[in-house]
Amino acid sequence: MKTIESVQNKEIKEVCKLHTKKGRDGSNQFLVEGVHLIQEAYEAHLLDRIFLSENVELDLDVEQVLCSQAVLNKISLQKSNASCIGLCHKPDRKVVSCDRTLLLDEVQDPGNMGTLIRSALSFGFNAIFYSKGCVDPYNPKVVQASQGALFKVHIEEAEMVSTIRKLQEDGFLVLGTALRSYSHFLHEIEFPKKTAFVLGNEGSGLSNRVIGVCDDCVKIDMDRFESLNVGVAGSICMYSCFIQGR
Amino acid sequence: MKTIESVQNKEIKEVCKLHTKKGRDGSNQFLVEGVHLIQEAYEAHLLDRIFLSENVELDLDVEQVLCSQAVLNKISLQKSNASCIGLCHKPDRKVVSCDRTLLLDEVQDPGNMGTLIRSALSFGFNAIFYSKGCVDPYNPKVVQASQGALFKVHIEEAEMVSTIRKLQEDGFLVLGTALRSYSHFLHEIEFPKKTAFVLGNEGSGLSNRVIGVCDDCVKIDMDRFESLNVGVAGSICMYSCFIQGR
Repeated sequence: MKTIESVQNKEIKEVCKLHTKKGRDGSNQFLVEGVHLIQEAYEAHLLDRIFLSENVELDLDVEQVLCSQAVLNKISLQKSNASCIGLCHKPDRKVVSCDRTLLLDEVQDPGNMGTLIRSALSFGFNAIFYSKGCVDPYNPKVVQASQGALFKVHIEEAEMVSTIRKLQEDGFLVLGTALRSYSHFLHEIEFPKKTAFVLGNEGSGLSNRVIGVCDDCVKIDMDRFESLNVGVAGSICMYSCFIQGR
Repeated sequence: MKTIESVQNKEIKEVCKLHTKKGRDGSNQFLVEGVHLIQEAYEAHLLDRIFLSENVELDLDVEQVLCSQAVLNKISLQKSNASCIGLCHKPDRKVVSCDRTLLLDEVQDPGNMGTLIRSALSFGFNAIFYSKGCVDPYNPKVVQASQGALFKVHIEEAEMVSTIRKLQEDGFLVLGTALRSYSHFLHEIEFPKKTAFVLGNEGSGLSNRVIGVCDDCVKIDMDRFESLNVGVAGSICMYSCFIQGR
């Protein structure tokens, strides 16, 4: 097995470039941490190489590189001592057709983005389009929060307004989520087979420009006027649509 | 206005003790960061003092202490430059009676805990009991994720099994959330007026000991066998119960 002990190693320096969006975009690669995510990436045929410590044994048919703890700590973005990190390539983009679609506009918190991807897969929203202003879905914190769901959905950066128009031409009902007085309550909506939800930024919500092209707006009924975490709100929307079609 | 410029100031050292659970438990105080949370704490009559930079003006009837940036950075747990931090006291515990109750067993992620508190308030689950193994709800990250909801619910540390039994004696249906084969689907349940949900740890779920005393187990129907973030799962449970009672 190949061994790397020096943090000055050229390959390791290249790998560390994947800590930034620029680096990930440039090489079309990203990193995953921990046994669970490495296995998920392997099953999705995205895993190219594993950097691991001598304490870890992984029975996967992929190149393994034994690393010193200093090297693993340098590759890892976690605080505690990392034991295995996978180098992956992003999946090929193929045109997909999915009756349930999620659009994310300026969702900036990695935890929320990952949670939404995880819930989307669970409720059959297998196509996700995100705006340029969203956090990069291959950001390690997003990958972590998605718990591997990122490898199983179609996810693609897209301009929101034109994507909404394309979905509408394709017969989708496109619902923006917004706490407006004219928004319909989620639980009163009859969802057609082709439904898309659009979710906005954590602080400012959806822009008027995006709301303007949506077919309608929905809001979640609450006991008192509060607001919900966007990951929760989006998940409740997707669950409601999924259950109605059950 | 009182001014503190030195990070060696005795009062500042005392305040920094609130970064740990031990410190918060000892003095019954906690910190909030940012204008929004400071205002929420003020409205809940929990705010005792504000530490702020000269760039911030807050029109609140509470003692304000002007601090150097170095002092604010020392008090703050955020990475970027803090501009205002509130010193608060924990609310008095009074016995409350609430028909919808949430129990959290070993929920360890601050973001999940905060999100669950936020959703609980939104859906009228105004009493929350949490086990000793949960993250401290006055942890700054929990306070942040709860977006002030923490100040408006009754939240109390409690032993799970005895609390479940007490709720049952009081007429509650206590539902554990668990992905078991015998669990009922959430969308097929008729919720009585008094309903309590019990949520478990992010990694290991609910213990058999706790499941054993619950009246029943529920699971959320999904498109494929995946798992959901506990904050999302709990929020969907509470939303479903709330909407049925609408």
